[in-house]
Amino acid sequence: MKKIIAGLCALFCTTAALAQKQPYQYVRPIIGTEKMGHTFPGATVPFGAVQLSPETDTISYAQNGKYNPDVYKYCAGYQYSDKTIVGFSHTHFSGTGHSDLGDFLVMPTVGKLQLNPGTAAHPEDGYRSAFSHKNEVVEANYYKVKLDDDNITAEMTTTPRVGFHQYTFPKSDQSHIILDMMAGLYNYDDKEVWTFVRVVNDTLVTGYRQTTGWARTRTVYFAMTFSKPFSSYGQKNYDAKQVYRGFWGKFDQNKNFPEMAGRKIRAYFDFKTEAGEKIKMKFALSPVSQENALMNLKAEAPGWDFEQVKAAGQQSWNKELNKIAVTTINEDDKINFYTAMYHTFINPTLYTDVNGEYRGLDQNNHKAEGFNNYSTFSLWDTYRALHPLFNIIQPKRNADMVSSMLAHYDQSVLKMLPVWSNSANDNWCMSGYHSVSVITDAIIKGNYTGDANAALDACVTTARHRSYEGIGEYIDRGYISSESNGTSVSNTLEYAYDDWCIAQLAKKLNNTAIFTEFSKRAENWKNVYDAKSGFMRPRLKDGTFRSKFDVLSTNGQGFIEGNAWNYSLYVPQDPNALIALRGGKKHFETHLDSLFTMHLPDEFFAETEDITREGIIGNYVHGNEPAHHAAYLYNYTGSPWKAQERLRMVLKKMYLPTSDGLGGNDDCGQMSAWYLFSSLGFYPMAPGSLNYELGSPGVVNATLNLENGKTFKVTTKNQSDKNVYVSKVILNGQALTRTYITHNEIMNGGNIQFIMSAKPNRK
Amino acid sequence: MKKIIAGLCALFCTTAALAQKQPYQYVRPIIGTEKMGHTFPGATVPFGAVQLSPETDTISYAQNGKYNPDVYKYCAGYQYSDKTIVGFSHTHFSGTGHSDLGDFLVMPTVGKLQLNPGTAAHPEDGYRSAFSHKNEVVEANYYKVKLDDDNITAEMTTTPRVGFHQYTFPKSDQSHIILDMMAGLYNYDDKEVWTFVRVVNDTLVTGYRQTTGWARTRTVYFAMTFSKPFSSYGQKNYDAKQVYRGFWGKFDQNKNFPEMAGRKIRAYFDFKTEAGEKIKMKFALSPVSQENALMNLKAEAPGWDFEQVKAAGQQSWNKELNKIAVTTINEDDKINFYTAMYHTFINPTLYTDVNGEYRGLDQNNHKAEGFNNYSTFSLWDTYRALHPLFNIIQPKRNADMVSSMLAHYDQSVLKMLPVWSNSANDNWCMSGYHSVSVITDAIIKGNYTGDANAALDACVTTARHRSYEGIGEYIDRGYISSESNGTSVSNTLEYAYDDWCIAQLAKKLNNTAIFTEFSKRAENWKNVYDAKSGFMRPRLKDGTFRSKFDVLSTNGQGFIEGNAWNYSLYVPQDPNALIALRGGKKHFETHLDSLFTMHLPDEFFAETEDITREGIIGNYVHGNEPAHHAAYLYNYTGSPWKAQERLRMVLKKMYLPTSDGLGGNDDCGQMSAWYLFSSLGFYPMAPGSLNYELGSPGVVNATLNLENGKTFKVTTKNQSDKNVYVSKVILNGQALTRTYITHNEIMNGGNIQFIMSAKPNRK
Repeated sequence: MKKIIAGLCALFCTTAALAQKQPYQYVRPIIGTEKMGHTFPGATVPFGAVQLSPETDTISYAQNGKYNPDVYKYCAGYQYSDKTIVGFSHTHFSGTGHSDLGDFLVMPTVGKLQLNPGTAAHPEDGYRSAFSHKNEVVEANYYKVKLDDDNITAEMTTTPRVGFHQYTFPKSDQSHIILDMMAGLYNYDDKEVWTFVRVVNDTLVTGYRQTTGWARTRTVYFAMTFSKPFSSYGQKNYDAKQVYRGFWGKFDQNKNFPEMAGRKIRAYFDFKTEAGEKIKMKFALSPVSQENALMNLKAEAPGWDFEQVKAAGQQSWNKELNKIAVTTINEDDKINFYTAMYHTFINPTLYTDVNGEYRGLDQNNHKAEGFNNYSTFSLWDTYRALHPLFNIIQPKRNADMVSSMLAHYDQSVLKMLPVWSNSANDNWCMSGYHSVSVITDAIIKGNYTGDANAALDACVTTARHRSYEGIGEYIDRGYISSESNGTSVSNTLEYAYDDWCIAQLAKKLNNTAIFTEFSKRAENWKNVYDAKSGFMRPRLKDGTFRSKFDVLSTNGQGFIEGNAWNYSLYVPQDPNALIALRGGKKHFETHLDSLFTMHLPDEFFAETEDITREGIIGNYVHGNEPAHHAAYLYNYTGSPWKAQERLRMVLKKMYLPTSDGLGGNDDCGQMSAWYLFSSLGFYPMAPGSLNYELGSPGVVNATLNLENGKTFKVTTKNQSDKNVYVSKVILNGQALTRTYITHNEIMNGGNIQFIMSAKPNRK
Repeated sequence: MKKIIAGLCALFCTTAALAQKQPYQYVRPIIGTEKMGHTFPGATVPFGAVQLSPETDTISYAQNGKYNPDVYKYCAGYQYSDKTIVGFSHTHFSGTGHSDLGDFLVMPTVGKLQLNPGTAAHPEDGYRSAFSHKNEVVEANYYKVKLDDDNITAEMTTTPRVGFHQYTFPKSDQSHIILDMMAGLYNYDDKEVWTFVRVVNDTLVTGYRQTTGWARTRTVYFAMTFSKPFSSYGQKNYDAKQVYRGFWGKFDQNKNFPEMAGRKIRAYFDFKTEAGEKIKMKFALSPVSQENALMNLKAEAPGWDFEQVKAAGQQSWNKELNKIAVTTINEDDKINFYTAMYHTFINPTLYTDVNGEYRGLDQNNHKAEGFNNYSTFSLWDTYRALHPLFNIIQPKRNADMVSSMLAHYDQSVLKMLPVWSNSANDNWCMSGYHSVSVITDAIIKGNYTGDANAALDACVTTARHRSYEGIGEYIDRGYISSESNGTSVSNTLEYAYDDWCIAQLAKKLNNTAIFTEFSKRAENWKNVYDAKSGFMRPRLKDGTFRSKFDVLSTNGQGFIEGNAWNYSLYVPQDPNALIALRGGKKHFETHLDSLFTMHLPDEFFAETEDITREGIIGNYVHGNEPAHHAAYLYNYTGSPWKAQERLRMVLKKMYLPTSDGLGGNDDCGQMSAWYLFSSLGFYPMAPGSLNYELGSPGVVNATLNLENGKTFKVTTKNQSDKNVYVSKVILNGQALTRTYITHNEIMNGGNIQFIMSAKPNRK
């Protein structure tokens, strides 16, 4: 349990305290903040629009026009190994592998005003400050740190749309709060499109920040208010080209000028503070307008009681986390479980104001009628386990997410469902049209109660969008040719799965024509299978398979974030047919065995962005998603005991309660959702199906408190870290003779008991 | 009558036709489009939000980072002497001396697509085209031209918020309509902030254009619709830095990609046309949203009948122009009169959608309750005669303009009334706080019926804004010192006049404290009078007058757009005191005589931006505003006959019915308003007063059809170009023994008769 921060241990590590701890107290937001996890340690409430968190560097995406690979470390702004904090900004993705956001970086300082951030090596040259983890407290919806340079204690908490800062200053005639409107994640020199800052009075400031980046056309509005009036304020405009044209030169715009506008602005607010004086600041966001930001501020955080806001946010975490009550083999497992649950409840994020208004993909403002609008859909990742998890423990929210996807579709001039919904934009990241999986799964499981036929239309129209990433060729040829793009095989496989989802939805809606069309398309995975090599393989337009073929390469040689070994397992909709085509159970199981045990050459790691030898088991890359279902395939080869063994190994090896405890990007909760499902002993191999494959539970007991008022209990007998094999499963008192359970069996309430053993049940 | 275009003469120049002509048929929008007038020839309706007009060049404000003085010619986009047209854009100022706008340049072409504009010397290298004036028809709300390069006839008309294009194409498989989102007036390389273009379907496109320029933070939304579906479309993005980050590269964004976004975009739409085929296009604007632009489009121009829209717009002109029915000595005078009236009814412009919504100075959207919101207030110019003219013939609109100014004030974090209101921005151009003149005049004349005390508060707060252009020093010292800024004298004089206005308003509202404070401030003009030189003169902080003093210089030596000769006459609120201080009537009259007769050295013209020897009479610079009241000062020296003589000379010499017929920038209607007042025989020397100085009418007869249902008639006896002297004035049957009439005498209806003579009445 290395590197768990001292502050938390001091609070929670006694056995007596453990007994009374509530779920939110097991959450360690620091998990995943080191190396590849790309989580952030700062404050947020479940699915909140604000993620108020420290940045430990503001490295640029590009330097001198060239991509800077170090930027990748700062997808969430914070790297545990860093020694300085630049400031606290209000928006962060959780666990992504590319980034954006980092809006409205705030930093308190004392002494001579420094408007440049300074460097990690020399924080004293700028507004950034050294800090150490021993002075850091990291909880759900609470972050505290001492900024060593200026002896300032920074605390922060949030409501859904408001960041609440509390800074404890030393005595100084020159205390400042800096608002850096230029800072941002994955910044580059033309990312800042426009900035507007309006000093309404000596405690209220409103404005907006407009950027182009992963989200191409994005504006975030804000309203910030201080608990104490500032005595003066000012700005510096860093855009050398921005001449004060017209007659703006009449004013000294740098000091006490209340209307700042431009591309590159850093503003500051001055105070005189007594020793130990707290200055509080509330910072509300809106995707619609300054007025809405102010409305959000007043609605969610009318007062100045920091502790009350913190407690309310932590209770909102508790409420969500209580949806699964667990007992575990040990404390670490419980920390892992509730932190995973915490990470699954960060993204997607609320993207609507308290009055229901939001900015749509069409850049018009809309009002969400009857649902909360959400953004941050990293669907290539999250369709697999995150949304299926929501279908069990967040069905209402998941239905709202489906509504948000359909609203996105309605606003899309491309007539496409979201691929990666990012603040009124689609950033088109990764492949597939996996919205259709989420929509199908939600409808088939009875959670989305809107117009299902309209939803099917949206799915079909998206899947027929011929100009999108090879769909036209896929329709015509049955596969995407290797000549067309570098991810032709993985695209073909993913489209085939998505098409199967559409077919399932059509079947449910008795739409025979669509069912027939898409059931046929769902077979297209067969067209990229090369019987000779025994792998899914890039295929040329002429029908032959490409001769150049590296089964280990993940680098654009037909696949994305996975190689032929992993993707050759990717037919979640029909494992039996896959196994049959690949030579039967025995042969297939050999492939699976090899996947988990083979030794990869060093070159593999050199060419693969976010994979290290620690982050894999054999050639099974758990840090990327394409093989997340792989271990469960042993259920289809007649060797579920191998699934059980592998799954427990992954649970143990890839999830640690430490800052570097995640084996890869958490990917907006997908990695954590996998952990939760697998810890509970079942997994949605193919969302769109009502079945969950059984594995080997990691928990001792779990109670799922469902929104329908029922409970589904997972219990174990003889559970231990050694007893990873399931010798018997009893569902509602009856021994189970299959390796799956159904959605209805869960949602109707009941209990499932796993009898554990140190020895595999080979029957 | 040189250069009146052939098309109009063919229509109107027969005597028979003249007899039945309606006022709008006398309007020649071509007047002022050559040299300094800076008017535009295109289509607009009275006070319309859209001014759809050709650009004859798209010269940049700066080249290689250096100001390009040639840009000044293109304040309104069109110079009569040019031989090519670049395209037709939707927003233009009328008669300004700096610029902005030129949004959404549209150009039809045939043949190989050319997305660059080409050059004036080689229009064939780009989308621009040669044209000739013989193929041009220029009417109120109608512009037609043949584009020679591609044999396309372009016609355009408007509604208040919609530009209506009609292009007659030759037969071609490659007909195009180009939408250049980069083009604009006073462009420079970082003026384009962001552009969004959304192809909704094959006849509808929406989007917006965001710029920084004279208006620092400005967005214009649009919705355009075609009468015929385009067969294909595309764009080119000219921002070399705009990498398609994220995964936009999945799409070919250049062709048939419906969501364009970036800083520098030119889009195009392709058609196949038959010979003589007309493609129509409607282009609606909104300051609020794409949706509002579409709403405006549907509300104002639901159909495709070009002739009907044109006729409706022309009738709306007729309705406004009929407010003054005139007979004139000759045809040219009538053309001048109605064209001047046309030019007074272009700016300010409507800045609100059909539902009352508009973007405010605070960059929030607002709803105008009970008034139409206006922008484009060039107040340093227009407080003098344009708004006073509105107080007689557009009182309702003028009250709405006052409401707009007060809304601007409410939205101002600086707590200032507009100086130069420009599309939800203040561009702070020129000096003074002349909103207070407009507000006072409107309230004193009974037109603004809102909360007058709130209006007074706004005036007072603005006038006490110490950090604005020397106001603090002006309050403390009674003048602005020469050390403080280059316009210290003219600022002091203008503030003193504005302060007098505030005092008048306070008096009307029985606010003694404010009346006393501002009456005292109104005397501050005396503090910059140097008895020794006999001129208003820059004064130092120590109280002495600056030794370096060039009485002719207009170039920042204490004055703006006027020299000491002209500004030494600027005390409109108290001419008698000015005359007394300057040595009495005889001495003062000598100054006036010299002003109109002196010979200026050539150096004067070299240093003065928009003044040529043709544009002045002696040292009286009619093309700039500060001496617009000067001739009327003869009424105060006991020599009104000299006023009459000078005024008729100015009317005759400075206003010609030709493309180069304006002696200076029309300045958003101020020059034209001067013409109208002086042609009617009276002039508001000091807005805020109820008096109008009498001059010498240029018309034969005029009937003012007032909004209150009454009429005020101006008649003459013995009127001719030679009989410029007034021997007697009869008001409502009584001989007048004073040299002014009052506002109530006009508004109560009645008639005034001027008995004209070739000889001065020296009594």
